[in-house]
Amino acid sequence: MARWQPDARERLQQAALELFAEQGFAATTVPAITARAGLTTRTFFRHFADKREVLFAGEAELPAYAERLIAEAPAGTSPLAVILAGLRAVAEARFEGRKDTIRQWRAIVATDAGLRERELQKRAALAAAVRDGFHARGLDPTRAALLAETSTTLMHVSVTAWLETDDRRLADIIETTLATLRATLDA
Amino acid sequence: MARWQPDARERLQQAALELFAEQGFAATTVPAITARAGLTTRTFFRHFADKREVLFAGEAELPAYAERLIAEAPAGTSPLAVILAGLRAVAEARFEGRKDTIRQWRAIVATDAGLRERELQKRAALAAAVRDGFHARGLDPTRAALLAETSTTLMHVSVTAWLETDDRRLADIIETTLATLRATLDA
Repeated sequence: MARWQPDARERLQQAALELFAEQGFAATTVPAITARAGLTTRTFFRHFADKREVLFAGEAELPAYAERLIAEAPAGTSPLAVILAGLRAVAEARFEGRKDTIRQWRAIVATDAGLRERELQKRAALAAAVRDGFHARGLDPTRAALLAETSTTLMHVSVTAWLETDDRRLADIIETTLATLRATLDA
Repeated sequence: MARWQPDARERLQQAALELFAEQGFAATTVPAITARAGLTTRTFFRHFADKREVLFAGEAELPAYAERLIAEAPAGTSPLAVILAGLRAVAEARFEGRKDTIRQWRAIVATDAGLRERELQKRAALAAAVRDGFHARGLDPTRAALLAETSTTLMHVSVTAWLETDDRRLADIIETTLATLRATLDA
């Protein structure tokens, strides 16, 4: 009987990222991942449905998290302030300090059409949650949809810029990106 | 030998839309579409790779069209003015006068995960073309990416609003949506 591995999930994710980067996503098998991690395939499938989901684990709860953040923001907070607070929280909790991993992750996703598709679905699901959250707060459908699309755009574009810098925090880059967007739309 | 059918493509598209709406996308076969259109399956496959592509025909050239519009805009035109001119042109050429068809199209796409995925890919391909177009015009990557994402957002959100109105032109709604976006980001 396998012992309980408290860090099994992280070890499998790390091993998978390494192998995807070394030999490609398509060529990497689940047994190769578990061998690298020193764990069994049974343990793998306790944590992930398949090798693709290793790359998207932890994303499933993001839409519900976003909707909760929006619902719980104090009355009277501007929608944009709600968005910025949410993006800053996500930047600090999930991005800061993980730049190399995220760079590696993006490079792997870029190599495979199925992974790119999965990434688009992830962004669409998050945008739908933000839209529903603002709609529930009483915003009209057009503003709710604009905020939803703009928040995923701000995050995606800011992460791209952040991956190319050495020293700036993602939360600060998000502010700069917003200023750039405003200037572009006012031109 | 089949006679040349000058309007075969449009008849097949119309028949497919009707059948998808009546009996669902999954339940509709290519022979059912061709029977409704009074044409052969051979004619069908001369125009479309499969029944899904009936819904996305004519989209393939949009990215190249967008890139060309951006490349050919007079020097000194602001990026936002280039975007607005492009969106207005697409609104007049491809949307105005086709509201019922587009409403039906959106309803069908909403029913099927594979179609929603295809729609996301279509938007991503268009955004990539806009981004590359502005990058080629000398814009930095952040501004090019923001313009790309914002232009697909403006179009998508404006079409949604347009489908719910009776009298306003899509080109005018695009201007209103942009004003709403500016106000939302300045709050």
